[in-house]
Amino acid sequence: MLQFDLLATDPASHARRGALTLNHGVVQTPIFMPVGTYGTVKGVMPRSLTEMGAQIILGNTFHLWMRPGLDVVQGFGGLHAFEQWDKPILTDSGGFQVWSLGAMRKITEEGVHFQSPVNGDKLFMSPEVSMQIQTVLNSDIVMQLDECTPYESNGQLTTESEARKSMEMSRRWALRSKAEFERLANPNALFGIVQGGMFEHLRQESLDALVEMDFPGYAVGGVSVGEPKDEMLRIMAHTPHRLPAHKPRYLMGVGTPEDLVEGVAQGVDMFDCVMPTRNARNGTLFTRYGDLKIRNARHKDDHRPLDTSCTCHACAGTAGVSWDDGGRGGFSRAYLHHLDRCGEMLGPMLTTIHNLHYYLQLMQDIRNALDAGAFAQLRAQFKADRARGV
Amino acid sequence: MLQFDLLATDPASHARRGALTLNHGVVQTPIFMPVGTYGTVKGVMPRSLTEMGAQIILGNTFHLWMRPGLDVVQGFGGLHAFEQWDKPILTDSGGFQVWSLGAMRKITEEGVHFQSPVNGDKLFMSPEVSMQIQTVLNSDIVMQLDECTPYESNGQLTTESEARKSMEMSRRWALRSKAEFERLANPNALFGIVQGGMFEHLRQESLDALVEMDFPGYAVGGVSVGEPKDEMLRIMAHTPHRLPAHKPRYLMGVGTPEDLVEGVAQGVDMFDCVMPTRNARNGTLFTRYGDLKIRNARHKDDHRPLDTSCTCHACAGTAGVSWDDGGRGGFSRAYLHHLDRCGEMLGPMLTTIHNLHYYLQLMQDIRNALDAGAFAQLRAQFKADRARGV
Ligand SMILES: [Zn+2]
Ligand SMILES: [Zn+2]
Repeated sequence: MLQFDLLATDPASHARRGALTLNHGVVQTPIFMPVGTYGTVKGVMPRSLTEMGAQIILGNTFHLWMRPGLDVVQGFGGLHAFEQWDKPILTDSGGFQVWSLGAMRKITEEGVHFQSPVNGDKLFMSPEVSMQIQTVLNSDIVMQLDECTPYESNGQLTTESEARKSMEMSRRWALRSKAEFERLANPNALFGIVQGGMFEHLRQESLDALVEMDFPGYAVGGVSVGEPKDEMLRIMAHTPHRLPAHKPRYLMGVGTPEDLVEGVAQGVDMFDCVMPTRNARNGTLFTRYGDLKIRNARHKDDHRPLDTSCTCHACAGTAGVSWDDGGRGGFSRAYLHHLDRCGEMLGPMLTTIHNLHYYLQLMQDIRNALDAGAFAQLRAQFKADRARGV
Repeated sequence: MLQFDLLATDPASHARRGALTLNHGVVQTPIFMPVGTYGTVKGVMPRSLTEMGAQIILGNTFHLWMRPGLDVVQGFGGLHAFEQWDKPILTDSGGFQVWSLGAMRKITEEGVHFQSPVNGDKLFMSPEVSMQIQTVLNSDIVMQLDECTPYESNGQLTTESEARKSMEMSRRWALRSKAEFERLANPNALFGIVQGGMFEHLRQESLDALVEMDFPGYAVGGVSVGEPKDEMLRIMAHTPHRLPAHKPRYLMGVGTPEDLVEGVAQGVDMFDCVMPTRNARNGTLFTRYGDLKIRNARHKDDHRPLDTSCTCHACAGTAGVSWDDGGRGGFSRAYLHHLDRCGEMLGPMLTTIHNLHYYLQLMQDIRNALDAGAFAQLRAQFKADRARGV
């Protein structure tokens, strides 16, 4: 099931505030979805996700198909029980990962033939197979199989004719995905994915065709695939707000905190990105006043937490009182610098919590601002704060 | 400060139940102390340690001296604030690590000259230096600098004369440690360390000399240094119960769950070992019915937690209700097997919690049995359970 209630709209932008009801619960939008590729958001306990306000997480169909394999997940009745996460889950189609196999795969109209990177088995992915896998995973939101149109191949920009060919195949795969999803009587919700590369008219064609098919929700794919930032912003400004107003809109694989605020302004309801978790492991931390590199030696003596205004477990400890509010239960930059230098696991454990908390809190702040009719002020303040520097 | 209250003794063994009051709180004994080498118990949040009942943890003087360095810890007023652990901490002397540097160090009566493994600096460790470092760390229990007598060197067993020479130097270093500890007016408690290799009469000589010096607590060192198990048990049977009854006894670097139960029976109050944390990272899990290798393919479909009687977060989730008591909130063996196979951090995070919880719960069970006058029954049941097999 899927029900989307539009609760408020911003008069000065395309931003919207909504509530998305799925089989495993209600998701307040706009929302960021932490990525749990192999059935685990890297380095985070499910309970920590709950504590930091995660409402829905991602799983990667391709990865989970390879390991642990469908027989194992089937035994648990789906991904939720396997990974002990009882709130909603969205799974991608597996298309992007298959596409990323490069020389190891061959794409035809029927689907994609490829060799398993785990054991070399010859495998086949198609719209039907993707639906079958995602039905076993029992994710609340299922994505159609699409072909992710590259920004460039071998240094050559994708041409209009290549982008059209790719988009049209994704459109046919959308139809096949929908038919198989219905045949399987999957009780969850299937999203169509708008493609069309960097060409607005192709995006519009793709969008029109998918709206015609009447999906319960729509995604914008094929952005954040190596294109320059202004190209991404151009597509972000074009497509999301043209999607049906009464259905949820998901911008795939985006992005920085700035991208999220801009995406919301363009009418996006849902985001996912590996950036907060991956950057945390690499020592790049998001804070209210800009990004911070914990490996920098200037942090070695610093008693302050990563973000003095943050209430995450890393910055504010079990009491959850920020440094600015007098809390002193958090972990210092000096300690996190030390953990990183020693390669201690606790380092990425704490920084991942902080970065995800930052993203989730930003979305909470955006929702609060939309509820209060103050989104424009939030955008301005966000921009000023982030530009200040840590 | 240190106050040791002997609460109960087992009539059928040397086992004792006590309460050890230190500057940062009271420790119920017998106790196992998780090892936090670099100011972090590897892979575990301090809050998780608290939740699983850890009462005191270790820090390694040598490692902390190298990284983050004393200036950083000094800025925090000690190790507690730096690592956000407000319960007692014990630090070793650094002697064992310096001794382990092999060719990079030279031991003299005055102390040990060595090269920093971090940056190549020429450094010097002595009883005085060790006391100065541990005073900065502000650990509740400070260990004297000793020379850890090896079991063998280059394939040759340590001779009686070598063991005597080593033990006598440790004895002189005990005196120097005590003098420096007092000169520094360190407000914590200094332990003397019994050495003497595998020779009971040398152990007795060492013990007598240390008791003469009147330390507030005593450790038995130089076991678990590569000797056969029966040699370890021989020394474990000789030394601990000969130490003063009204003072705490610490058996350094021991051991398996079986060693802990045997050690308690021999009159030991305190244990530390990297085994539960290291084994967890290597996929070897301690359970009531024996050890379990999570990498074994037979676990790939198993819905049960590691230990169906365990109430740790890994086995019983946030509710803490064991599988045997109907709880289904824990993480399955299948999931942990999958995490291990994918190299996901959540694997060692969960298994470390389980293994430490196992050790801490075993000590809690032992304390309960001693309180109830039922230690003999616990020993018998423990042995039968562990022999059953998972
Ligand atoms: Zn934080
Ligand atoms: Zn457990």
